[in-house]
Amino acid sequence: MALVVQKYGGSSLESADRIKRVAERIVATRKAGNDVVVVCSAMGDTTDELLDLAEEVNPVPPEREMDMLLTAGERISNALVAMAISAQGAEAWSFTGSQAGVVTTSVHGNARIIDVTPSRVTEALEQGYIALVAGFQGVAQDTKDITTLGRGGSDTTAVALAAALNADVCEIYSDVDGVYTADPRIVPDARKLDTVPYEEMLELAASGSKILHLRSVEYARRYGVPIRVRSSYSDKPGTTVTGSIEEIPVEQALITGVAHDRSEAKITITGVPDHAGAAGRIFRAVADAEIDIDMVLQNISNTAGRTDITFTLSKANGPKAVSELERLKDDLDFSAVLYDDHVGKVSLVGAGMRSHPGVTASFCEALSKAGVNIEIINTSEIRISVLIRDAQLDDAVRAIHDAFELGGDEEAVVYAGSGR
Amino acid sequence: MALVVQKYGGSSLESADRIKRVAERIVATRKAGNDVVVVCSAMGDTTDELLDLAEEVNPVPPEREMDMLLTAGERISNALVAMAISAQGAEAWSFTGSQAGVVTTSVHGNARIIDVTPSRVTEALEQGYIALVAGFQGVAQDTKDITTLGRGGSDTTAVALAAALNADVCEIYSDVDGVYTADPRIVPDARKLDTVPYEEMLELAASGSKILHLRSVEYARRYGVPIRVRSSYSDKPGTTVTGSIEEIPVEQALITGVAHDRSEAKITITGVPDHAGAAGRIFRAVADAEIDIDMVLQNISNTAGRTDITFTLSKANGPKAVSELERLKDDLDFSAVLYDDHVGKVSLVGAGMRSHPGVTASFCEALSKAGVNIEIINTSEIRISVLIRDAQLDDAVRAIHDAFELGGDEEAVVYAGSGR
Repeated sequence: MALVVQKYGGSSLESADRIKRVAERIVATRKAGNDVVVVCSAMGDTTDELLDLAEEVNPVPPEREMDMLLTAGERISNALVAMAISAQGAEAWSFTGSQAGVVTTSVHGNARIIDVTPSRVTEALEQGYIALVAGFQGVAQDTKDITTLGRGGSDTTAVALAAALNADVCEIYSDVDGVYTADPRIVPDARKLDTVPYEEMLELAASGSKILHLRSVEYARRYGVPIRVRSSYSDKPGTTVTGSIEEIPVEQALITGVAHDRSEAKITITGVPDHAGAAGRIFRAVADAEIDIDMVLQNISNTAGRTDITFTLSKANGPKAVSELERLKDDLDFSAVLYDDHVGKVSLVGAGMRSHPGVTASFCEALSKAGVNIEIINTSEIRISVLIRDAQLDDAVRAIHDAFELGGDEEAVVYAGSGR
Repeated sequence: MALVVQKYGGSSLESADRIKRVAERIVATRKAGNDVVVVCSAMGDTTDELLDLAEEVNPVPPEREMDMLLTAGERISNALVAMAISAQGAEAWSFTGSQAGVVTTSVHGNARIIDVTPSRVTEALEQGYIALVAGFQGVAQDTKDITTLGRGGSDTTAVALAAALNADVCEIYSDVDGVYTADPRIVPDARKLDTVPYEEMLELAASGSKILHLRSVEYARRYGVPIRVRSSYSDKPGTTVTGSIEEIPVEQALITGVAHDRSEAKITITGVPDHAGAAGRIFRAVADAEIDIDMVLQNISNTAGRTDITFTLSKANGPKAVSELERLKDDLDFSAVLYDDHVGKVSLVGAGMRSHPGVTASFCEALSKAGVNIEIINTSEIRISVLIRDAQLDDAVRAIHDAFELGGDEEAVVYAGSGR
């Protein structure tokens, strides 16, 4: 008998009918002899509807109240799933994040989990109940206010619960049936992976793969929780994220997959005087505006003692970052702030590249042959990323996928839905 | 400076626009220098929509989960009102019933308040915030599960908070602008009352008046909380429910108003053998089925040593009560169970009838003149109620209202809406 944590996203719960299907799966898992804990996101459109209502009464709603409002969504879905389970012959209790012992920082809208003490969940399991826990929420340690966890919050709730309960697996359900060697909608012969080590999944998530959120993968890696990515529309086993690349014998290390990202923009500050402190001032200004940045590049200064600093960030934050940086212009004496939101990022991920020195060369050659120009290169031990024109992204993904022979024989199965 | 508790019902909150109007009133009350605590019901149709969703996944949903589900409604409305208040320049925090210290029994769907310890509300007021508290809910003292309070739950939450906070007044807002001498939709010259003592309001509520729930009036009476019934659509002062009939000098005691009730049915068990225990068995059977009963009549037995027992109950419970009683037929050896759901109840309420002996006579004469036949009479110290044919209810109400000269000169103002 195992302890299984399952997480269902909003699209898996978008109607009474889908809720009943999900309940069937949960009851089947329980009847197979497992202890089952389920984390549900809010139903399909609920969160958006609540956001619309909020906007009607206040265009800039206070964050504490936004968290009180949005958490109603998960309360509703978890109670309904518990009811559906009860209609199908098993017993279930639903809990809010607070009741389940999810304790967080007090940053409304983007709280971090400090600790999980799920005694009411454990008690429910001991009494033979299935426990439903509202995802995406917790209670602030200091203020005792209700908080929401920001992006990937429900996945993180599920993994954190699995860690605290010492679960055997954390299954993340959506409308995709696993992690693929590339997005199957772009690459028809993309292959579903059976397993992926944590570090590679981290790189894939950071490089644009939307299957799992970076945060939940990092949490799983730190606590050794195996994650299984499965579809709520089929019984396929999915992809298991587990293990470290350190455990893979060097000769067996592989190239795992290709990720792409259309959501970034590029900012270059040109002619930055090459003296200590300039880069610090630039990045502090961006950080103070609460903007996250991704790739950073600075090359050597030219003969005039000036250099260019380039970084990428999400397009949504582009205009704000530009205006913050413009304000520094006179003070720092740089030439200009250039903004480019037609870039795309494509990445190759695999532990194998540590032991195969020709990978970078093959990568660049494949792009060149496909007529794709590389504008920026950024690498880690197990990842190569390049910035290119976004219009060429699909070609680039296919070229690299072919060059590294990642494709399989079966046609990839693509379900309706946008991939969450 | 006063401490004011305000309660807004679902129809006052049915849209973003209504929510903004309500927020205006709350902010105005605060800006006049008062401490303000607000209890909101769920928005208009929310509770019904949630009930429909529940029914789709389980026709007989577990009660614990129903409470988890329904309480989402009040969470949403209170958070939205807090946001609307913030948009209008005041500060507000919303709290669940649990966070506000509303501790209850663990009877899901019909919990009773055991205690209210509103320390977080007091703290909010001390910091200058307006406190919103979700109505209709609390937390069970023993299980720590979330509970809902049953009918009149939001009114009861508001009065209980007012009592715990020692508030100066508890204002109950709906779409009617006060307590009238009779339903203005039936009696055009019905007069709005300025004040009504607690005992009379209790009788009016028990006799069919839907303005306030019996429970909340009793709570207010016990703790001496003045209740003001007002409309959320106007600035009229409304009706204040306060004081005891004992404080009214005997000569000034009046007849206050006429209430009517279409929601009851009548059951008569005929030919009950007149021996000890028969009535007890009958009423125990009904009580065990968790059915509340209203008026009870048993007259002296006939020469054959048999009598009829009659009682009234809500129509919704009629069929169930009949079937429970039919099962006793052979055992108790009564003749038949007669069921009549075309009855109406009309009541005259007023402390004055204690000191004016002709009231019962005038009451019966007025009905007789209007051609209304009295089937059953039931009285208390300050109330006369009769059961008549429901088709004659409107005529009966008008006849009594005229006979006791309760009407005023102004035409009663009736707002759109069904009276809550």
